Amino acid sequence: MEEVDHLAHERNKAQFDVEAMKIVWAGSRHAFEVSDRMSRLVASDPAFRKDNRATLSRKELFKNTLRKAAYAWKRIVELRLSEEEASKLRFFVDEPAYTDLHWGMFIPAIKGQGTDEQHQKWLTLAYKMQIIGCYAQTELGHGSNVQGLETTATFDPKSDEFIIHSPTLTSSKWWPGGLGKVSTHAVVYARLIIDGRDHGVHGFIVQLRSLDDHLPLPGITIGDIGMKFGNGAYNTMDNGVLQFNHVRIPRNQMLMRVSQVTREGKYVQSDVPRQLVYGTMVYVRQTIVSDASCALSRAVCVAVRYSAVRRQFGSQDGGPETQVIDYKTQQSRLFPLLASAYAFRFVGEWLKWLYMDVTKRLQANEFSTLPEVHACTAGLKSLTTTATADGIEECRKLCGGHGYLCSSGLPELFAVYVPACTYEGDNTVLLLQVARFLMKTVSQLGSGKQLVGTTAYMQRAEHLMQCTSDVRSAEDWLKPSFILEAFEARALRLAVACAKNISKAPNPEEGFSQLSADLAEAAVAHCQLIVVSKFIDKIQGDIDGMGLKEQLQALCGIYALSLLHKHLGEFLSTGCITPKQAALANEKLRSLYAKVRPNAVALVDAFNYTDHFLGSILGRYDGNVYPKLYEEAWKDPLNDSVVPDGYHEYVRPLLKQQLRTAKL
Amino acid sequence: MEEVDHLAHERNKAQFDVEAMKIVWAGSRHAFEVSDRMSRLVASDPAFRKDNRATLSRKELFKNTLRKAAYAWKRIVELRLSEEEASKLRFFVDEPAYTDLHWGMFIPAIKGQGTDEQHQKWLTLAYKMQIIGCYAQTELGHGSNVQGLETTATFDPKSDEFIIHSPTLTSSKWWPGGLGKVSTHAVVYARLIIDGRDHGVHGFIVQLRSLDDHLPLPGITIGDIGMKFGNGAYNTMDNGVLQFNHVRIPRNQMLMRVSQVTREGKYVQSDVPRQLVYGTMVYVRQTIVSDASCALSRAVCVAVRYSAVRRQFGSQDGGPETQVIDYKTQQSRLFPLLASAYAFRFVGEWLKWLYMDVTKRLQANEFSTLPEVHACTAGLKSLTTTATADGIEECRKLCGGHGYLCSSGLPELFAVYVPACTYEGDNTVLLLQVARFLMKTVSQLGSGKQLVGTTAYMQRAEHLMQCTSDVRSAEDWLKPSFILEAFEARALRLAVACAKNISKAPNPEEGFSQLSADLAEAAVAHCQLIVVSKFIDKIQGDIDGMGLKEQLQALCGIYALSLLHKHLGEFLSTGCITPKQAALANEKLRSLYAKVRPNAVALVDAFNYTDHFLGSILGRYDGNVYPKLYEEAWKDPLNDSVVPDGYHEYVRPLLKQQLRTAKL
Repeated sequence: MEEVDHLAHERNKAQFDVEAMKIVWAGSRHAFEVSDRMSRLVASDPAFRKDNRATLSRKELFKNTLRKAAYAWKRIVELRLSEEEASKLRFFVDEPAYTDLHWGMFIPAIKGQGTDEQHQKWLTLAYKMQIIGCYAQTELGHGSNVQGLETTATFDPKSDEFIIHSPTLTSSKWWPGGLGKVSTHAVVYARLIIDGRDHGVHGFIVQLRSLDDHLPLPGITIGDIGMKFGNGAYNTMDNGVLQFNHVRIPRNQMLMRVSQVTREGKYVQSDVPRQLVYGTMVYVRQTIVSDASCALSRAVCVAVRYSAVRRQFGSQDGGPETQVIDYKTQQSRLFPLLASAYAFRFVGEWLKWLYMDVTKRLQANEFSTLPEVHACTAGLKSLTTTATADGIEECRKLCGGHGYLCSSGLPELFAVYVPACTYEGDNTVLLLQVARFLMKTVSQLGSGKQLVGTTAYMQRAEHLMQCTSDVRSAEDWLKPSFILEAFEARALRLAVACAKNISKAPNPEEGFSQLSADLAEAAVAHCQLIVVSKFIDKIQGDIDGMGLKEQLQALCGIYALSLLHKHLGEFLSTGCITPKQAALANEKLRSLYAKVRPNAVALVDAFNYTDHFLGSILGRYDGNVYPKLYEEAWKDPLNDSVVPDGYHEYVRPLLKQQLRTAKL
Repeated sequence: MEEVDHLAHERNKAQFDVEAMKIVWAGSRHAFEVSDRMSRLVASDPAFRKDNRATLSRKELFKNTLRKAAYAWKRIVELRLSEEEASKLRFFVDEPAYTDLHWGMFIPAIKGQGTDEQHQKWLTLAYKMQIIGCYAQTELGHGSNVQGLETTATFDPKSDEFIIHSPTLTSSKWWPGGLGKVSTHAVVYARLIIDGRDHGVHGFIVQLRSLDDHLPLPGITIGDIGMKFGNGAYNTMDNGVLQFNHVRIPRNQMLMRVSQVTREGKYVQSDVPRQLVYGTMVYVRQTIVSDASCALSRAVCVAVRYSAVRRQFGSQDGGPETQVIDYKTQQSRLFPLLASAYAFRFVGEWLKWLYMDVTKRLQANEFSTLPEVHACTAGLKSLTTTATADGIEECRKLCGGHGYLCSSGLPELFAVYVPACTYEGDNTVLLLQVARFLMKTVSQLGSGKQLVGTTAYMQRAEHLMQCTSDVRSAEDWLKPSFILEAFEARALRLAVACAKNISKAPNPEEGFSQLSADLAEAAVAHCQLIVVSKFIDKIQGDIDGMGLKEQLQALCGIYALSLLHKHLGEFLSTGCITPKQAALANEKLRSLYAKVRPNAVALVDAFNYTDHFLGSILGRYDGNVYPKLYEEAWKDPLNDSVVPDGYHEYVRPLLKQQLRTAKL
């Protein structure tokens, strides 16, 4: 690939076929080829350069994003890219922009909640980007509690219009990406008021800015909400604030697929089931899980490569020092993250299948699996985004001091990623939704009700509540059945214990509230079981390629056993395993780290990330870290001059004891 | 304080004397008064404004820091502030600057390692800031491993000079703060070479820049190493890169308190014990622990106040929604951090005492307690900085979406704080130092050797290895003796288990390396015990003021029991407590959260932070969050114009389908 390869000796050690693993990681040969082609297309085009982001001012940064978004769209049109290719291209451009919301939220909202006529009118414009849309839901005072939104849409039967209005300061729309400076339109969520009666929150298509001069339309106040965490990062996005002062829109701009308001002002439901919204939710959360595996794998790729380059201590007789990746403390923090990246990739793939499955069922008016699917996707969104945000920061710390430099790529990756823990459902709120579902499921145990999907294991409650693990040797911990049983028993027992404690409370709501910290832990245990079991399913399926299965088995073992170690208190207190068995698990874990060690660099090469996408000097494919770090430093604006701006005004007078007369 | 107080109802609920708690927090009435005076002095002076940092370019930001540093010095001189006051003033300016290194590293290094004549010459200049110094130790290729530094200082007997040289790229000094653009001098650490023989790493005073025109002296290449994590944050600091090309300095600029090079080129040791360096290390680490409690308490203050302002869900009959701080999930994440802030404050106070104690002993040539003191300070630095970095980010997440805005203050607080996990000893490396000491201590158990200080508990090894906890009720978990015994038994048993496993290895070094992840955990357990026991000591001492003791007891209980919950696997697997006792601990923990809840806002008021210092709209004293967030948004540069820069070039052509001919 490059001329020097400081990591060649690491790559030569690999005991599996890296090219084959790239296909497994991508999901299919087709997916690999599209990704590979699009990532190279972006990486080779200087217009998509991103290494200067940290030093740009907000305005320069934002303007540059507008340029890239336009240029990307131009290339998409010129090259006649498919929807799949276009979406991959945008992904590899790797810069949050208004287009994310246009394609990812505005269009899907209209698709999911609009009527055929609305599709015809609005999607036609949106697909060509003749309008640019965003998704205006959250308000200054309301995020998680969507039902508490304050913006109103009052039907005016005289003019056959809705009047969109922000009655309070806290009802200002706040956060929507793309809103602040770019969007011409928005899907606005507001309380539908007809004749004084509140029909709850509905979506409305509202034009925000003139298509002629881009000025906000009358009655509309819009702005950007200001700087966010990190350099570059999400500051390329114009998250916005929006206030309506009695803005009128035609009645047919309410999204009317599920409920309608008639000309006479009657509120009616169509025969389209409300449950359809779940389909969209599963879709969105599936993409979030998939993004989690991308972000985590990126950080892990940087940390693994740099840990193989970096040497510290342990020089023998003047020879080279020890590679940092050879330290067991480094391995015990890094390899579980490597394993998690693979685990999240596979559970994300399974969620894609689940989305297709649930879509089919919805089309057949079959809703029975919905609660389980909803709980499962909510939980996996929460689990993977939390682990990924923490994991990126852990990778940064694993790169030592140099990880703190923007040129390591990790600070920006962290800052741009963490909002995923909050948007599309705050992670703690989501865990409590999962817990609520679990409590309901537990209450039905023994009622003969068939448990489906990810709760099927609870069918074996009688066994799982009292079994003791048969693990007798470290080797036993490699057997999927032992791992599954331990994770199933832990999840079920924690849920059942919560249910018991809740039943002691004066009433269930009070009990749920008192126990909610425990409930969140039970929900996590359930979700970890899902990830572990999908990883096991994956390695029990067909996997072609020399040595792949062995590597994935090792990673699966690391994922499961490192969780067992981290949550040991739960496994022990519920009696699922004994301290002795826990010690065996730890022993096995250590041997798995040793097994993965020679393959670590190859396992991150399998992600097939270009240096452009990684955006990290520490993670360079060729490992040529130090000369490039040195080179990069000189590009900082502070190095434009040898003597810094401000020396004459503020440093020299201080050194010369002349501050008394200095203008400060 | 302010005209509106949205948190007045919270403040009225407090069950203790907040003013008295302010004294306890500060450590003494005197310390409180100095802090209070200095913080108001800074807060009331517009020259110290910092709310615009996030939008400044690197150059503007840096220039502004130079101005503030000069202005602060001017005020310090004008007001004839004492050293204590000056240091507090700089602290409340709250902006990393070259002066931190000048006062915090350059001067102490000369003080600690320089001879009397060197003090006379250099400190005189430094105290008046006629020279500005930094501390040039770490290199591009070496951070943790100080003994591996590559820069050389070769004695030239002909000219009676040292020749300072950077033989490789990786030997470039890299990271020193204040080096990049400001310092005129540095203490440079380099390998002392005499007559071809390497005498290891020593410190040298080297002038870097001309005092006339600030240009680097011949043979010296210096620059800034570039942008770091976050907006504002540490980018106010000129962390630098430095290369020497055979730079000559007089022989008397080697710091010669401990070892000297004579005119003839002989390397000799003075009668000053080498152990003196430990004194400095204890001092520096004590300040780091103290800073940890400051940073964590700041984040907690923001999160507690905002959690009391923010309402979400749970509106009954159209009434107000539930305050977020009333959710048990919020309490179970937030209150342990509140308790940690207090715990770190008290252990920091104790470390101050320890520093004085060790200084006295060193002066009396008594070195026996040094290994214990060294391990203890290394461990507490690691423990408190890790917990604080994680805790700040947790507080940010606890503020939901708005915590992601720079105006919440939390992103910058996190970004500016995290390097503490890496500098002055990487936290994992430090834990392994603690572990090494613990293994040595364990190996001496039963030898009759007297165990001192924080290891005194190991004296009761026989009892602690086999005791079982007598806790029978949730109430029992409030008794210090039960808590201490559980923490002591856990720490000791983990250490002993490690020692046993190491003894099975082919040799101790190999065993230590293999077990290092477990060893790090054992070290954490030992350090947590120290913090818990110092908190208990504190509440068992005299504490004046209505209700203070009750609050501190509750916080101490929360600190200890939340750790017990988090590390439950260790308590259970070592048999220190039973699952039943763990459940009782959890029950007690919940009741302690309920006890702290009405006092939470007052407990953070006791930190006595000004709104200027907090730098957070979410954490405002008056709780007037939403109007101020809204106001702040409009200050972003993107809002300078309604139609953004770049619209005409990049958005309009896209909307009008004219990209083909656009210049992108």
